[in-house]
Amino acid sequence: MEHQLSLFYGLSFLTAILAFAFAAYLYLWVKKQPAKNAKIIEVSKLIKEGANTFMRREYKILAIFALVAAVIIFILLPEPVWSGDPLDNLAMAIAYLAGTALSAIAGKIGIMVATLSNSRAAEGAQKGIKPAFLIGFRGGAVMGLLVVGCSLFGVAAVLMIVGDASILLGFSFGASSLALFAKAGGGIFTKTADVSADLTGKVELGIAEDDPRNPAVIADNVGDNVGDVAGMGADLFDSNVAAMTSALVIAQSLSGDGMANVSMIFCYAILGLLSSIIGIATARVGENGNPTRALNSSTYVTTAVFLVLTAGATALFEGFSWRIWGASATGLLVGVIIGITTDYFTDDTKPIVRKVAKASGSGPAFTILSGVSYGFISALPAMAGIAVSALVAYKLCEPMGAGYAVFGISMAAVGMLSIVGMIISNDAYGPIVDNARGLAEMGGLGEETIQTADALDSAGNTVKAVTKGFSIGAAGLTVISLLGAFMSEVNVALEAAGKPLITGFDIMSPTVFFGVLIGAAIPAVFSAMLILGVDKNAQRMVAEIHRQFNTIKGLKEGKPGVQPEYGKCIDIATSGALRELIPAGLMCILATIVVGFIGGPLAIGGFLLGNIVSGLLLALFMSNSGGLWDNSKKYIESGEEGGKGSEAHKAAVIGDTVGDPFKDTAGPSINTQITVVSLVASLLSTIFVAFSLFG
Amino acid sequence: MEHQLSLFYGLSFLTAILAFAFAAYLYLWVKKQPAKNAKIIEVSKLIKEGANTFMRREYKILAIFALVAAVIIFILLPEPVWSGDPLDNLAMAIAYLAGTALSAIAGKIGIMVATLSNSRAAEGAQKGIKPAFLIGFRGGAVMGLLVVGCSLFGVAAVLMIVGDASILLGFSFGASSLALFAKAGGGIFTKTADVSADLTGKVELGIAEDDPRNPAVIADNVGDNVGDVAGMGADLFDSNVAAMTSALVIAQSLSGDGMANVSMIFCYAILGLLSSIIGIATARVGENGNPTRALNSSTYVTTAVFLVLTAGATALFEGFSWRIWGASATGLLVGVIIGITTDYFTDDTKPIVRKVAKASGSGPAFTILSGVSYGFISALPAMAGIAVSALVAYKLCEPMGAGYAVFGISMAAVGMLSIVGMIISNDAYGPIVDNARGLAEMGGLGEETIQTADALDSAGNTVKAVTKGFSIGAAGLTVISLLGAFMSEVNVALEAAGKPLITGFDIMSPTVFFGVLIGAAIPAVFSAMLILGVDKNAQRMVAEIHRQFNTIKGLKEGKPGVQPEYGKCIDIATSGALRELIPAGLMCILATIVVGFIGGPLAIGGFLLGNIVSGLLLALFMSNSGGLWDNSKKYIESGEEGGKGSEAHKAAVIGDTVGDPFKDTAGPSINTQITVVSLVASLLSTIFVAFSLFG
Repeated sequence: MEHQLSLFYGLSFLTAILAFAFAAYLYLWVKKQPAKNAKIIEVSKLIKEGANTFMRREYKILAIFALVAAVIIFILLPEPVWSGDPLDNLAMAIAYLAGTALSAIAGKIGIMVATLSNSRAAEGAQKGIKPAFLIGFRGGAVMGLLVVGCSLFGVAAVLMIVGDASILLGFSFGASSLALFAKAGGGIFTKTADVSADLTGKVELGIAEDDPRNPAVIADNVGDNVGDVAGMGADLFDSNVAAMTSALVIAQSLSGDGMANVSMIFCYAILGLLSSIIGIATARVGENGNPTRALNSSTYVTTAVFLVLTAGATALFEGFSWRIWGASATGLLVGVIIGITTDYFTDDTKPIVRKVAKASGSGPAFTILSGVSYGFISALPAMAGIAVSALVAYKLCEPMGAGYAVFGISMAAVGMLSIVGMIISNDAYGPIVDNARGLAEMGGLGEETIQTADALDSAGNTVKAVTKGFSIGAAGLTVISLLGAFMSEVNVALEAAGKPLITGFDIMSPTVFFGVLIGAAIPAVFSAMLILGVDKNAQRMVAEIHRQFNTIKGLKEGKPGVQPEYGKCIDIATSGALRELIPAGLMCILATIVVGFIGGPLAIGGFLLGNIVSGLLLALFMSNSGGLWDNSKKYIESGEEGGKGSEAHKAAVIGDTVGDPFKDTAGPSINTQITVVSLVASLLSTIFVAFSLFG
Repeated sequence: MEHQLSLFYGLSFLTAILAFAFAAYLYLWVKKQPAKNAKIIEVSKLIKEGANTFMRREYKILAIFALVAAVIIFILLPEPVWSGDPLDNLAMAIAYLAGTALSAIAGKIGIMVATLSNSRAAEGAQKGIKPAFLIGFRGGAVMGLLVVGCSLFGVAAVLMIVGDASILLGFSFGASSLALFAKAGGGIFTKTADVSADLTGKVELGIAEDDPRNPAVIADNVGDNVGDVAGMGADLFDSNVAAMTSALVIAQSLSGDGMANVSMIFCYAILGLLSSIIGIATARVGENGNPTRALNSSTYVTTAVFLVLTAGATALFEGFSWRIWGASATGLLVGVIIGITTDYFTDDTKPIVRKVAKASGSGPAFTILSGVSYGFISALPAMAGIAVSALVAYKLCEPMGAGYAVFGISMAAVGMLSIVGMIISNDAYGPIVDNARGLAEMGGLGEETIQTADALDSAGNTVKAVTKGFSIGAAGLTVISLLGAFMSEVNVALEAAGKPLITGFDIMSPTVFFGVLIGAAIPAVFSAMLILGVDKNAQRMVAEIHRQFNTIKGLKEGKPGVQPEYGKCIDIATSGALRELIPAGLMCILATIVVGFIGGPLAIGGFLLGNIVSGLLLALFMSNSGGLWDNSKKYIESGEEGGKGSEAHKAAVIGDTVGDPFKDTAGPSINTQITVVSLVASLLSTIFVAFSLFG
């Protein structure tokens, strides 16, 4: 069996390298597409420079944070360095840094490709949907392949070298702490720029979305890259690593053939990546085809291929269980179902978006009230889906022996995330074609090209909602299994300390309950801090835009040769995002530590539960309300309910502005927040067992 | 000891009768205040008729619902009638009906006094703050005294007659099921009218809040009565009964001197009512005094008197424990602290309201975003307060023996609700002076009188936020102890069925977890249904107002003798509220039943936890955001940030409109929703033990 595991380590590296090679091929393919329009090249360069400046400044801050964290980790984890084996501490610290580094690299390369693809997609749009779609999608796929390749490679390498999955918690924490800040920082940047550009441009002046007169327009396009490409990539890198880590931590504590289970986790990850490669390679759209359908059908292809391949592996390899295959398949299918229900609430061909558009006719208060309401309702099916898949996975695997039930849940998360390569490709496609639309307008490529780019952009929006539902669901399942991982870690520590083990977290215990209530409040406070960050920042940027319109002569009127000072807006977005990015993330980590020191492991168990539950609820609510408002606005802009410029449109724009930080700053950051908190809890379990006030 | 309990039954009846007598005295005092202005008498009559029509139609529907429920209860509870003693079933059904009847009577009398006090307070305002304050406050106090008197009388009578606290669950369910619908129906009515009146009057036409030209103005004033007076009264009647019931159910299962504990519960309730009477009797405001301070200081007086009296009782009576006094005092003090933090987030002399007002200058999206954010943050201190008080009460009472820990939590809830008579008086004061302000304007009493009424109204708003925080906190603690009551009921059923008892609800159990996730989604869906009810209904009413403005000649211009058709708007609010009131409440009850039949008692334990946690979070968020927006608008109207008519003001009005159903429809209904769900669970525990899919 040891032999079999070596086989899967080898295959993991090979598959990761295959993914990198395919990514390189796609990158070169995108690069050789034509980019000739001088105006577009100029603007695209501005976007690229803005994105790089932000990333450089952000990474500088994060490097300091990571180094400080690595030192703390070296001193304290897995056990205080003076009481354990210092080599373990060193391994943990290095694994942590490796996690942060891989996450940063994936983000950086993603930005590189995205800022390369946007201009080419814009020019491709002149020739029609087909070539532009392929450029946008393949640019996104580079990111998807890299992220999944890095996570598979990293997890396999760390585990092979240290041979102990607990050290992987450090790697995973590295990935997720970076993701937390990257998502928060990028999210604040992108929405500061987007909101300010919309309010001053669309609402006040009535000019188009990407009108080059608007000083915030470049910052807005930079934001798409740093928020949606780099941030989302870091987020899904982190989810993927966390899902594998929690499965591996639980697998190594299982009775029976633990090695077979470890092999199986790698096997599923490998097959997931292969399925995504197949899905990516076959993605196509016809000459006048529907890009939404093309993106969705690639997802279904990937799903089907994965289910077939893993079934084959289960039949082939000794020690692979059909029950676990079932758990994993359940996770994946529920992911698809969550995606479909999300789509129901956010797609403008479905009734909900139209109801909100209609309500906008009575004024913005109704836009907000109906959007909030449907957002609340949309949380139910997704939460029920997560609840049912966890229940089914548990019951399926329970007969296999002690600990297998929770392992089943972790494999449902692995299953749901297996096609994450495809998911990221779809997701990164969005900001690329969104940029392309902007470039087409700023480069003056004509109305027809803009319309083509619009169609591509709208598909990006719809698919984004689906992938968001998917990643929230996956985070939910991952964190449930991290709760299991936390309990095993606590029991290891309790056993070492000669204290009685815990068998669970009873909600009738006031210590657990205490944790639940505090834990539930954290995602709300976290979201609020991010939204207020956008709010404050956007107010500063709006003031700057007004200043430019008032002082730069001929700017408002569009006098030829007069250009706004784009750099000032990029600066405001950058420095604001960097200022706001640390406090919110740090608050969550500190809250976990405080609760742990007050109530010990039992309070932390409750804290994690409260955090997951309210985190899922708020993440679903905010992502879906935001998507709903965005598409209601687009629906009205397509000429319904009075069309552009009507009162309904004005109301819908306000709804969209509220929804922007909901769906692109706070909502998706909550995923990462709950993962980070769970990992901090697992990492510090030994310390909480040793010191706590009431524990 | 039996002797001692009889003493407390006797004292309960006596105190309740004292409260009724004092209420009658205050009623007659209010009635003999002058009401001479013909215009005011006419309008006040319209309001009274509108409120009575709504109440009559609402109670007709609720009577049918209650009768159906009583029949189901008779057939099934506490055990199916064919397998247990039919007399028990009859007792349960009658207790249920008594609960609904007392709740309905308290609501009805509250409306009667409120519609009597409003006109007198308006005329009192001509003579200054002092007399008007006293009329408003004493009118509210009639309601407060009645509600608390009824609940003490009802609980004592039911328990004395049947001698089994489990039957009280039926009484409590009667009170809370009626409260659920009364709160939902009244909440939808009041906000439909308020939102429509504001949008068409203030925003579109720029006329004053209570301008008699607005066809919705009478409906708006009717709404204050049916929503805030009758609805809030039913809500707090229900909380008070539920807190006592859960304490009594737990007390009767305790080892040791159960009778002393039962006596103590009644003793605390009696002393709470006496303290409220003292607080009410001493409430005064100086000639140019500050009404907010007067209301708050009466609350503090009541709190101090209660703490001293209960300490005296603990010293005096054999078997009364200081530990339990400590638990109860903790609950009360945390209630006060929650009130103070709520005040921090919603008072316009504090920074938060001013920040939101400032953000409004950048447009309505910023009003919404900052209000949502601060609302989220405001949930943390209150939830931490509830968590800490539950933990302290538990730890204080744990050494007393098995079961005492949870009893301690239930006594913290009883403590927090002990001063509820005072709380309701403060709360009902709000809509009375709000009405008075409207009447002063419609009766043409002059600018000075309107300003006096405004000052009184603004105090009502601030105090309302505080009492809301209070009642949410109390609901939280009550429901935690109801979770304990549910577990004892389940174990009684399990013991009878010869099955192993449960010792708690472990969140690592997938059945519990399944319940938690579904339970957490319910308050969100429930809120959404109510908000959508307001949303749909207000759209209908806005259309009707536009019709009247367009077709009734001279109305807009205020031509003398031209009157709008007030009745049409009252009709729309009434029939809409009645249509929307049943589905949301029924959804919660059905969801509980479905989860119980799928997952059995374990899933229900999780379901209740999820429900409490997300319910508290959303209730705090919505109440506080709503209060915050309302006061930001008022702050701007006082001349800050550009004052009335500025862009900031328009944005703030939109925020206030969003906040209206948040704070007066959905937010406060969640309290009742979580209580109802907990009671349904306890009542059906026997059935869930016998039949469930995975339980």
